Amino acid sequence: MIPGMSEFPTFGNRPRARDLGITIGTLRTGEHNALTDVRGVRVGHSTIIQGKGALVPNEGPIRTGVTAILPHAGDLFLEKVTGAVVRINGFGEVTNTQQVDEMGVLEGPLLITNTMNVPRVADAVMDWAFDHSAAMGITTWGISPIVTETSDSYLNDIRGRHVTKAHVYEAIENAREGIVTEGAVGGGTGMVCYEFKGGIGTSSRVLPDELGRYTVGVLVQSNFGSRRKLRIDGVPVGRELIDYDERIKRDSQGSVIVVIATDAPMTSRQLKRLGTRATFGLARTGTQGGNTSGDFAIAFSTTRNRPHHSTSHTLTLDQVVEDTQLINTLFDAVVEATEEAVLNSLFKAETMIGRDNRVIYALPIQETVEIMNRYGHSQVHLP
Amino acid sequence: MIPGMSEFPTFGNRPRARDLGITIGTLRTGEHNALTDVRGVRVGHSTIIQGKGALVPNEGPIRTGVTAILPHAGDLFLEKVTGAVVRINGFGEVTNTQQVDEMGVLEGPLLITNTMNVPRVADAVMDWAFDHSAAMGITTWGISPIVTETSDSYLNDIRGRHVTKAHVYEAIENAREGIVTEGAVGGGTGMVCYEFKGGIGTSSRVLPDELGRYTVGVLVQSNFGSRRKLRIDGVPVGRELIDYDERIKRDSQGSVIVVIATDAPMTSRQLKRLGTRATFGLARTGTQGGNTSGDFAIAFSTTRNRPHHSTSHTLTLDQVVEDTQLINTLFDAVVEATEEAVLNSLFKAETMIGRDNRVIYALPIQETVEIMNRYGHSQVHLP
Amino acid sequence: MIPGMSEFPTFGNRPRARDLGITIGTLRTGEHNALTDVRGVRVGHSTIIQGKGALVPNEGPIRTGVTAILPHAGDLFLEKVTGAVVRINGFGEVTNTQQVDEMGVLEGPLLITNTMNVPRVADAVMDWAFDHSAAMGITTWGISPIVTETSDSYLNDIRGRHVTKAHVYEAIENAREGIVTEGAVGGGTGMVCYEFKGGIGTSSRVLPDELGRYTVGVLVQSNFGSRRKLRIDGVPVGRELIDYDERIKRDSQGSVIVVIATDAPMTSRQLKRLGTRATFGLARTGTQGGNTSGDFAIAFSTTRNRPHHSTSHTLTLDQVVEDTQLINTLFDAVVEATEEAVLNSLFKAETMIGRDNRVIYALPIQETVEIMNRYGHSQVHLP
Amino acid sequence: MIPGMSEFPTFGNRPRARDLGITIGTLRTGEHNALTDVRGVRVGHSTIIQGKGALVPNEGPIRTGVTAILPHAGDLFLEKVTGAVVRINGFGEVTNTQQVDEMGVLEGPLLITNTMNVPRVADAVMDWAFDHSAAMGITTWGISPIVTETSDSYLNDIRGRHVTKAHVYEAIENAREGIVTEGAVGGGTGMVCYEFKGGIGTSSRVLPDELGRYTVGVLVQSNFGSRRKLRIDGVPVGRELIDYDERIKRDSQGSVIVVIATDAPMTSRQLKRLGTRATFGLARTGTQGGNTSGDFAIAFSTTRNRPHHSTSHTLTLDQVVEDTQLINTLFDAVVEATEEAVLNSLFKAETMIGRDNRVIYALPIQETVEIMNRYGHSQVHLP
Repeated sequence: MIPGMSEFPTFGNRPRARDLGITIGTLRTGEHNALTDVRGVRVGHSTIIQGKGALVPNEGPIRTGVTAILPHAGDLFLEKVTGAVVRINGFGEVTNTQQVDEMGVLEGPLLITNTMNVPRVADAVMDWAFDHSAAMGITTWGISPIVTETSDSYLNDIRGRHVTKAHVYEAIENAREGIVTEGAVGGGTGMVCYEFKGGIGTSSRVLPDELGRYTVGVLVQSNFGSRRKLRIDGVPVGRELIDYDERIKRDSQGSVIVVIATDAPMTSRQLKRLGTRATFGLARTGTQGGNTSGDFAIAFSTTRNRPHHSTSHTLTLDQVVEDTQLINTLFDAVVEATEEAVLNSLFKAETMIGRDNRVIYALPIQETVEIMNRYGHSQVHLP
Repeated sequence: MIPGMSEFPTFGNRPRARDLGITIGTLRTGEHNALTDVRGVRVGHSTIIQGKGALVPNEGPIRTGVTAILPHAGDLFLEKVTGAVVRINGFGEVTNTQQVDEMGVLEGPLLITNTMNVPRVADAVMDWAFDHSAAMGITTWGISPIVTETSDSYLNDIRGRHVTKAHVYEAIENAREGIVTEGAVGGGTGMVCYEFKGGIGTSSRVLPDELGRYTVGVLVQSNFGSRRKLRIDGVPVGRELIDYDERIKRDSQGSVIVVIATDAPMTSRQLKRLGTRATFGLARTGTQGGNTSGDFAIAFSTTRNRPHHSTSHTLTLDQVVEDTQLINTLFDAVVEATEEAVLNSLFKAETMIGRDNRVIYALPIQETVEIMNRYGHSQVHLP
Repeated sequence: MIPGMSEFPTFGNRPRARDLGITIGTLRTGEHNALTDVRGVRVGHSTIIQGKGALVPNEGPIRTGVTAILPHAGDLFLEKVTGAVVRINGFGEVTNTQQVDEMGVLEGPLLITNTMNVPRVADAVMDWAFDHSAAMGITTWGISPIVTETSDSYLNDIRGRHVTKAHVYEAIENAREGIVTEGAVGGGTGMVCYEFKGGIGTSSRVLPDELGRYTVGVLVQSNFGSRRKLRIDGVPVGRELIDYDERIKRDSQGSVIVVIATDAPMTSRQLKRLGTRATFGLARTGTQGGNTSGDFAIAFSTTRNRPHHSTSHTLTLDQVVEDTQLINTLFDAVVEATEEAVLNSLFKAETMIGRDNRVIYALPIQETVEIMNRYGHSQVHLP
Repeated sequence: MIPGMSEFPTFGNRPRARDLGITIGTLRTGEHNALTDVRGVRVGHSTIIQGKGALVPNEGPIRTGVTAILPHAGDLFLEKVTGAVVRINGFGEVTNTQQVDEMGVLEGPLLITNTMNVPRVADAVMDWAFDHSAAMGITTWGISPIVTETSDSYLNDIRGRHVTKAHVYEAIENAREGIVTEGAVGGGTGMVCYEFKGGIGTSSRVLPDELGRYTVGVLVQSNFGSRRKLRIDGVPVGRELIDYDERIKRDSQGSVIVVIATDAPMTSRQLKRLGTRATFGLARTGTQGGNTSGDFAIAFSTTRNRPHHSTSHTLTLDQVVEDTQLINTLFDAVVEATEEAVLNSLFKAETMIGRDNRVIYALPIQETVEIMNRYGHSQVHLP
């Protein structure tokens, strides 16, 4: 038996970082410690795992999927959320970023998938939008889908582009408030993080009452990093686990997507500032931002909606005051939740065997706890 | 008979700007006065015109297409051209712009189509790239397609997304050096410019021998502008033609894409500077850059290729010296060729009837010549 | 007598573009056709003209100055206006642009001077700010001065950096609402535009009642362009005047600063979009944006002030709805007013003799009128 | 006696991080573990410490200075180094960043001082440049000084702007290869980092032979961070020292400047990518990038000089190949050297008493070593 492996993921058995006593930062989490702690935000996955053995391009094995994030419960085209895309390292794609930057809003659901499935997923988002609007493309302009990606080609038949319209619809329709499934699910299915199994991870922070009780939620698609660099709460876990298994020895390939939601009212300029702090959270897990990483933060505010059309000349909107303590604590929240979301993606994902019988091991829990203890983090314990 | 109308385009009958004695600027043109005057650059169209009468979404009438631009004759993935994308007004999409900006290169052919067909065209570019590379997605990463667009929803069943993989392959395989067909063809089929029929237009400039004889070629997909603002070589032709027909009276909807090629060796930073000058050329035709315009310039240099992989640590490349006269004349070339390419798209496109029997009239040649003469441009004449 | 020359400027004798029947665009102007038509905005100049004959570095001749723009009548540090700086061509300086971009506000007065005087003027702005705030640098942070420039080295002893603290204070204290002096004054004293005498020019537009009667004001420091390219309302005046005098034959040296004020409530993102339209106005006067041009637009909204400190968590602010007609008309206003402000700088500036007895001629009024008439603009006439 | 205090700095007594056995990352350092390990780069300081007791604005106490960095030994105007400025958080100033971004080069020495002295230092750089060029401003354009800053207002009479032309000249003329003095010197004199005394710190990395032996040097002006966040090689030293003294309890005020030099030939686009990695190094020391931080990276390559004027049309230059291993290791070098440079600024700076008898304590060495040991870093020891 390969250490820690189950042939296919059996979600829910592994602990999250906090279940082990690993507490990142000082702010408290939201109810579910998830992106969905921002009221109205929903997350849904569609996971595709089929076949095993040697890669047959366009057939399999398939280890991929798609994750949908819906910023609010209303019509996502007619009520656009204020948003921003921040490039950390641009070797990747977020569709329609120029329009987001020009107009300061996001339209529709956000979809996270693999690199080569971006066009098919974007096309499916159009189908979905057309289903909800008879006017689109006829009497008004159409949706500009936001689809992003990292590459699952190490484990998955990526040329096959196996995410179909049905999967996209499933992810959108599955989207729920509450607990978010993490690890090798949805757009995170075939992903690799610090040479361990990665994927979807999430976390949240709630500001103190005297700073308005705003919530910041983060969800990552983790697919980046060299093992030797992995740090958990500052402890060089990756260095200590360097010979743990026959690791894949790929240096800083892969990418990461960080989605940030908040109910603090923020302009697109402010959200760009907020998104920039994702880098700080990622950096604490050890990465240097690899050359071929497509690393982006996508941030949105659920309380600054802008209508598709309006008959008024002006619109009145709130924004947070950029005085030191509130904005700095929002920044802290992003840094803490990003770091913890990456860790959650590692703790929750199980060992996976993919194309050509390639194995990516899950981060070993017991060994990690022992290392943390050895480095003075005595409160860390098995669940 | 509606003035100037033939039911479907019959290419080649209408004159270009220069055939009428309209000479923009002072630099001489290349042999074909086209993007293809830059050695190695090829252009191909696939035009789809089907049906008439009332719009039946997903059926027709269809007035759309796709245009392919191939920067050189070699493998466009293994030999990437140095490139840059410049946002003029970002209400539109050029796929993978963040990667172009990060890495400074363009991969593969450039495709120009309508807004809602972007995903399907990008997906077809992946198919085409996979056909040419067994390694892509398996032992190396994949192509990042560059697909751009404006909207043809006024004349076309845009929800139908009628550009298929076959059309994309046709455009790429049709791509040729030499004369470029202009007007309502390829990605320009259903486009409207200054409330006249627009579409594809092209022009080029060659620098004097003492400045190195570099060539700058421009190709536009013109789909922008309010008629009342149209200027031809400074003459307010649009104002004079304001009551010429029952114009569609849409104010500054639409968009424009400007593709710029040069054989001058230029870095991505320099190409960004070059692309910025497209704005100056567009402005001279009268536009103010409308709110909902997706206006982009995509610039590339054919003489600064960078290999997909290399075993060396360094690469030695030329770049133009940014001393005043050469770089300023390259800038002039972009301004002149952009202005003339827009005019060529107007002069070459014929009246078109599209969905719901909507008519977009061609710019009337005889009236335009008369106006030009009245405004002191006595050298302008019928062909 | 050299044509059109008076040895030193005698302001007020020459006509503005509208006095000659030259009407740019279709929107109406504000009361003074000036930046100051935006309520609360004040402009002041300090002009320094001393000495003649051969250049003695650090002594003279001096042909320089400084112009101050005050966005509102209150405390410009404690009440910051929303603002944005747009780079058209970055071969020049606007101090503190990174902070403007990060925070979306302008602090203090804007100062326009020559290239080498930027530090001394910025230092003087600090003095002025300290005079108005005992807390600055002691219990709160200090002002980030916005100072910009173009080069007057053709006519002026620029190495001498002759703009002192006294001149800066004079410009700020002179600042007034109402009529703005144009031509070779303040920061425009030694400037050259299209190889004619340039300098300060201004213009404004007021939107129709049904679009909210918002005002857009523009002020330029014009110091750019090759004569052969000069267009006035589309007419190739520069080409026709190419042999008018012994012109200086410098190709596209110089730079231009465009300041845009509006009482429309606009976010910094929207102001960036507004500022981008300055390029379109400049382009219509003929320029291609020269290589060594430091071309910037600085835009601000007088009705979206943000306090230096606040005890609230949020701030409620208006912004214009980006629906087509209002925002497009604001864009039109910038394009029209920028074009007309450049023309006003040319029409108002008088012939100047500077260092080494260099002469820069004023644009000849009578010849220009004749050319305009010849090109079909029959309504243009001597004042 | 206050712990660790000497009334004024006595440089050289305190150890650097490596003297304590703290080794950041895995790459080896250059000879001096300093910015100056990049051949040709020179660093000079001018330190101004005068007076004590209550603040008398414009008189003192003075705790400030200026640091000069000279990229090479030649004429820094006629031979410009390829360079880039990266904004991490833009609440601060680096002069002439728009020009650096447009043209891709740095001119002259880089100067680092306090916020309010930026104009006076920039003016002095012009003086210095004029001394070296009789042509500047007369027959060619002038230097665009690069001056940057953070605020020393907690300890220093910042309103006094006490850095004069003589100090700037001193810093430039003092500039040397070899060992760089660290701590409370030059531009770092009055700075505060993680609520301990900060200032100037430096570090370097040399790539392995098989990756070309390129050197990357980093120098920081550290003036940022909340103590509770300070991490040293991942260990929460700040949290453990939270009650060590009567700390100033200021939350994330301040700023940081990171200067990066390399002899790897890199384009301005590549240097922007390199500079972006400074964020990762800073993040590892604990900061989240505070709201009012002016955080910038300024990167340059010493082996890609571009001449001020040239008679050729093209220039041939090397650049590194962006294949994974070399570029990723250059990125690693920046991350490691930035983290270590911040630590060196903390370890080297001594306790300082400034205006109003405010005390900023030096990071206590013995306590830090004990904390590191407690957190599993057993190799850390007193020097």
